[in-house]
Amino acid sequence: MEKIGKYNFIAGPFHCDMSQRLFMGYLVNDMLNAADFHSDEHGYGVTYMNSVHKAWVISRLAVEMIEMPPMYTKFHIETWVESAMRYFTNRNFSVVGNDGKVYGYGRFVWALIDTDTRQPADINAIMGDYMSQWLEKEKPCPIARSSRVKISEDAQLVRTLDTTYTDVDVNGHINSVKYIDHVLDLWNLEWYKNHTIRRVEVAYVSEGHQGDRLAMYLEQTGELEYSVRIMKVAPDTEEAVEACRCLVAFNNC
Amino acid sequence: MEKIGKYNFIAGPFHCDMSQRLFMGYLVNDMLNAADFHSDEHGYGVTYMNSVHKAWVISRLAVEMIEMPPMYTKFHIETWVESAMRYFTNRNFSVVGNDGKVYGYGRFVWALIDTDTRQPADINAIMGDYMSQWLEKEKPCPIARSSRVKISEDAQLVRTLDTTYTDVDVNGHINSVKYIDHVLDLWNLEWYKNHTIRRVEVAYVSEGHQGDRLAMYLEQTGELEYSVRIMKVAPDTEEAVEACRCLVAFNNC
Repeated sequence: MEKIGKYNFIAGPFHCDMSQRLFMGYLVNDMLNAADFHSDEHGYGVTYMNSVHKAWVISRLAVEMIEMPPMYTKFHIETWVESAMRYFTNRNFSVVGNDGKVYGYGRFVWALIDTDTRQPADINAIMGDYMSQWLEKEKPCPIARSSRVKISEDAQLVRTLDTTYTDVDVNGHINSVKYIDHVLDLWNLEWYKNHTIRRVEVAYVSEGHQGDRLAMYLEQTGELEYSVRIMKVAPDTEEAVEACRCLVAFNNC
Repeated sequence: MEKIGKYNFIAGPFHCDMSQRLFMGYLVNDMLNAADFHSDEHGYGVTYMNSVHKAWVISRLAVEMIEMPPMYTKFHIETWVESAMRYFTNRNFSVVGNDGKVYGYGRFVWALIDTDTRQPADINAIMGDYMSQWLEKEKPCPIARSSRVKISEDAQLVRTLDTTYTDVDVNGHINSVKYIDHVLDLWNLEWYKNHTIRRVEVAYVSEGHQGDRLAMYLEQTGELEYSVRIMKVAPDTEEAVEACRCLVAFNNC
């Protein structure tokens, strides 16, 4: 057991977009898997938390890339917990090629919830002081922390979609990464021929469930920077509830 | 270089559905990656084919599972080319846990196409007799071959959807696996709580592109067996063209 977990991945060609670089969604899923492998080794992964009716859910994330790993790149994801408070843990990531090239970084904030009530659970009450010995406070993660993501009431409705079976993950709710995929799908292939993704942030507000209809509101908040609010409407209601807010920043290429 | 390639994978928790078993789409993507790693080792993978303006595209596939690997399972995919004809190669797969447990099999048929004309290309003209030395004709793959998938004119329109950026793969067309995801999404989470996927077949008819609108027609063809026809309409046309036909067979669980 190490403070910094290191897990190997490969940018398989069928995990890549037409620019022959890894899809952001696959990379973030690899980060989620790396985080869980690391937590699991320390005894507080999905399996243990399920057994005590708890689950880790992402509260916020930020991923910032220098570039995306090209097809066939063998890389590793390093992950470590920087801090743990009562309801939240801050876990960081670096994405590094096996040749030492740094591709990017991630900063995720996880909350522990009770799976019976879906309310926040006190990490210390479940685990005592167990996590403090595994904190890694020195390793740098040179990207800005995730924010609450600002978006105004001027954002325009640009797409609605119904959530389906493949949107739902082991936690039984709409997978955090699927929101990212749905947001990135607001731009077409022509856009991606001329732009790369520099930074993605998501602030999760409430859990979505299969059958929810998502309504996506887009606002340009800077040069090549956009915010998206995703509202959800459950099948048996008319009420729209905020599911999450996302920020996407691009580079010209 | 071996006739039978063997590649390691893991059923990462965030590649699993809410039953805590690997998503079919992730498994088939792993199979595609394994096939490409194997082809690439022999010098005829995506990279080489791109360099001579050719691409492997799937013509048909069949995947049949005894069960899906549970979360955290370390497994390997073995893959071998059973036969190669002028325009097609038959490549098989087995999915085996590192403990020896057999999870399932696949039978895929690939065609070589010219990426300038998108027409079939003669494998022998490109590669001579090179592939024949790598054929593996003895290893069993005990599932039925993929079929053309029968579906009648009685099939009912059940869903339309617009294809987006994340539907498109390194070949620049709608990814073969995305059709499978879209088909499996025709059943809801309640269905998957009571049914597992026994067999999936796809017969690909014509390539789809980002922006195409897909129309999905469903017909029940047996007890727990369904066929789906996917028609595509390009943005600048009204004409509906068949993209593929799929068969899905379930087990009660």
